[in-house]
Amino acid sequence: MDVNGARDARGTRERLVVVGGDAAGMSAASQARRLRGPDELEIVAFERGNFTSFSACGIPYWVGGDVSDRDELIARTPEEHRERAIDLRMRTEVTAIDPAGKRVRAREAGTGTAYWTPYDKLVIATGARPVRPDLPGVDAPGVHGVQTLDDGQALIDTLSRTRGRRAVVVGAGYIGVEMAEALIHRGYEVTVVNRGSEPMSTLDPDMGRLVHEAMEGLGITMVDDAEVTEVRTGEDGRVRAVATRDAEYPADVVVLGIGVRPETSLAAAAGLPLGAHGGLLTDRAMRVRGHEDIWAGGDCVEVLDLVSGQERHIALGTHANKHGQVIGTNVGGGYATFPGVVGTAVSKVCDLEIARTGLREKDARRVGLRFVTVTIESTSRAGYYPGASPMTVKMIAEQRTGRLLGVQIVGREGAAKRVDVAAVALTAGMTVERMTALDLGYAPPFSPVWDPVLVAARKAATAVRQTC
Amino acid sequence: MDVNGARDARGTRERLVVVGGDAAGMSAASQARRLRGPDELEIVAFERGNFTSFSACGIPYWVGGDVSDRDELIARTPEEHRERAIDLRMRTEVTAIDPAGKRVRAREAGTGTAYWTPYDKLVIATGARPVRPDLPGVDAPGVHGVQTLDDGQALIDTLSRTRGRRAVVVGAGYIGVEMAEALIHRGYEVTVVNRGSEPMSTLDPDMGRLVHEAMEGLGITMVDDAEVTEVRTGEDGRVRAVATRDAEYPADVVVLGIGVRPETSLAAAAGLPLGAHGGLLTDRAMRVRGHEDIWAGGDCVEVLDLVSGQERHIALGTHANKHGQVIGTNVGGGYATFPGVVGTAVSKVCDLEIARTGLREKDARRVGLRFVTVTIESTSRAGYYPGASPMTVKMIAEQRTGRLLGVQIVGREGAAKRVDVAAVALTAGMTVERMTALDLGYAPPFSPVWDPVLVAARKAATAVRQTC
Repeated sequence: MDVNGARDARGTRERLVVVGGDAAGMSAASQARRLRGPDELEIVAFERGNFTSFSACGIPYWVGGDVSDRDELIARTPEEHRERAIDLRMRTEVTAIDPAGKRVRAREAGTGTAYWTPYDKLVIATGARPVRPDLPGVDAPGVHGVQTLDDGQALIDTLSRTRGRRAVVVGAGYIGVEMAEALIHRGYEVTVVNRGSEPMSTLDPDMGRLVHEAMEGLGITMVDDAEVTEVRTGEDGRVRAVATRDAEYPADVVVLGIGVRPETSLAAAAGLPLGAHGGLLTDRAMRVRGHEDIWAGGDCVEVLDLVSGQERHIALGTHANKHGQVIGTNVGGGYATFPGVVGTAVSKVCDLEIARTGLREKDARRVGLRFVTVTIESTSRAGYYPGASPMTVKMIAEQRTGRLLGVQIVGREGAAKRVDVAAVALTAGMTVERMTALDLGYAPPFSPVWDPVLVAARKAATAVRQTC
Repeated sequence: MDVNGARDARGTRERLVVVGGDAAGMSAASQARRLRGPDELEIVAFERGNFTSFSACGIPYWVGGDVSDRDELIARTPEEHRERAIDLRMRTEVTAIDPAGKRVRAREAGTGTAYWTPYDKLVIATGARPVRPDLPGVDAPGVHGVQTLDDGQALIDTLSRTRGRRAVVVGAGYIGVEMAEALIHRGYEVTVVNRGSEPMSTLDPDMGRLVHEAMEGLGITMVDDAEVTEVRTGEDGRVRAVATRDAEYPADVVVLGIGVRPETSLAAAAGLPLGAHGGLLTDRAMRVRGHEDIWAGGDCVEVLDLVSGQERHIALGTHANKHGQVIGTNVGGGYATFPGVVGTAVSKVCDLEIARTGLREKDARRVGLRFVTVTIESTSRAGYYPGASPMTVKMIAEQRTGRLLGVQIVGREGAAKRVDVAAVALTAGMTVERMTALDLGYAPPFSPVWDPVLVAARKAATAVRQTC
């Protein structure tokens, strides 16, 4: 049955079904609605949880107390979506997708009622699920994930009730380091247990080392190269410690921040194409490959890395919003594409800022690129200006061509967003030689006369020439 | 006499003469020295003033008290240059250049001794001179420019001695607004008298209006559309007021911040090519056009604006340093070019941040470009994150092609350096449509999920499509 057939079958309106009511799904729904009114397009959206359009990235700041109220993290409530003529069905899980029949099966959590409902166009925005290690004790009271607002509330409730002041964070990626900050803010003694050789494995180890040292400087106990083997509980059944092969770390509360995987079990069961990282594969218009009427976006898809030329999985709200915008435009009869990512990410732990974009050394090696690497020290402002703080910039450039491949920055105030310059340069395929002449904003309160990114580019350009 | 002839005449060493001991000149000398040792290259540098390699951009922060000591503004002292085998002759002014004879005439301020000295290669880095209006009373005690460290010291001395607390700043460009901040910091009641319709004429008037309002919010009296006609003095001969056609503004101290012009009288007298803005014209290697052995850089040259395709004059330390680096590399036997600028500038007045890059509306019109303009309001961080502050972004894009032409930003913390994203996009010739998908760093403490630059790009891309 083609689109026109379906439309004929039910009158003149097309029917868009959206699976997942968070950033990607509801951005798609909203944008489609902007372009096509309710007379032309019926929109039905299913969300299995209790919230729509919330900022998962904001949860650490809510837990840490920077954000006082859960509702501040909600960009748009179910009621607001419904006011825009979106038939939003909360606490209703889609349990099957039938691409041949152009229908999905839904089940209401409250009543248990299950039904099939047809679509002309389908948007899959099922997000990601946190990796939850299969460890003894991992389900004990006091062990928390931080994926959803409900997770966040549960953790806050535990923190309010717990008398002890020892927290263990398992994982030292973005979630792990941000939760470490949150727990420090709440007065906890924090231990971060990390499987890798350094925290922040999205950085090269030498830059991760700087994060390790800075986090120790903030009073956080950093345990690297440590695999958690068990969550140990006390007589009351609550968590009392996290055990690794070699040691035990007392814990009154444990936060799991190990990362996420694409939530694509529905898509897999429906025979939709998945990539090597388990995410849905789409074309440039965010259409699921080989399926004219199905789009997918957000944390459940793989995206093209413009630097490596390969697919990656990156769960990040800013991409989910862009995907939703692109999907909604296309579903709404317009034209938009998502060209891909360069892998930019920024984070902070108290006043430590961490940023990266492009390829790490091992990424470059993996895709067959030869490169030079330089690392420089500079400052966020002119050296004489109050508040100038040190910053380390690592830059990776391709041999011979001199094309920028990646940048990592660790520093204090003003470090993180400097990576945006590199993100744009990567997108443009710029060489480090060309970057040395970039006309970046200069005034003593904002930058040394040579911006740290320019200092790195100069050194990288010299290194490239020496390999020619 | 060609280079080899000159070398033969004095032995095997080439002789580089540098006119002007500040950022461009001494960067060139230092870089040339790095590439060629004293056995190969003799370097003689003339500086008519008392300082080398100082940060003129830092003077407002020294006057305002953010920087406590003058010497912090000096990147490298005469002694440090001499230690690198540069024959630096301080308080010695070059009074003539003889390109045909390949020599310059120098005069020592102390002794009055004058002499000709030969060069094989010449670097002209004579900088800029402040516009000093030809007004009655402009030379009265209490009226100050802020171009040199001596100027800064004289102003600080006046501020220390003056009992009154009323300051008038003439001019509302970068120097004017930065000096307004400095005087506020020193406890003055500040009036800024400005010839233009709004402050910061490097912005479009609508954005300048935001600066006007914010500066008034800081307690600064803003007088626009006002031409100063006279500086009035008291019975003691000191300044007592600044008069315009319509009014009089009492003043215990007056700061002139009207802008600068290229200091090219020497070059003009020597018949070297000057552009429409009075600056020396160079090629991509910063060589003076038509002169094999003469380079020029810094505030005395015109630079190619990559967006308009025309020459401009921009006095800015970051360009001067880049020019010096390029010149020194070429003089030292290497190869480097300065491709041009996109016109990025950032500034601040207390917590107000101001940034611009590329073309204003009137610039675009002047060079025959048709364009769309959008202005958006956003915030520096996620709206729910503490310290999120409003930011206005104006974006100009070419009709039909959608090519980015310019960006202006006015806001608080985090506004200024966001312009760098646009500066790189301009350099790469990016369209605003392409910019909507830029992978910029996102985390709640650093940006809303759609960075303000992306919000502007989305709106601009829509506006471009509507003109197609």
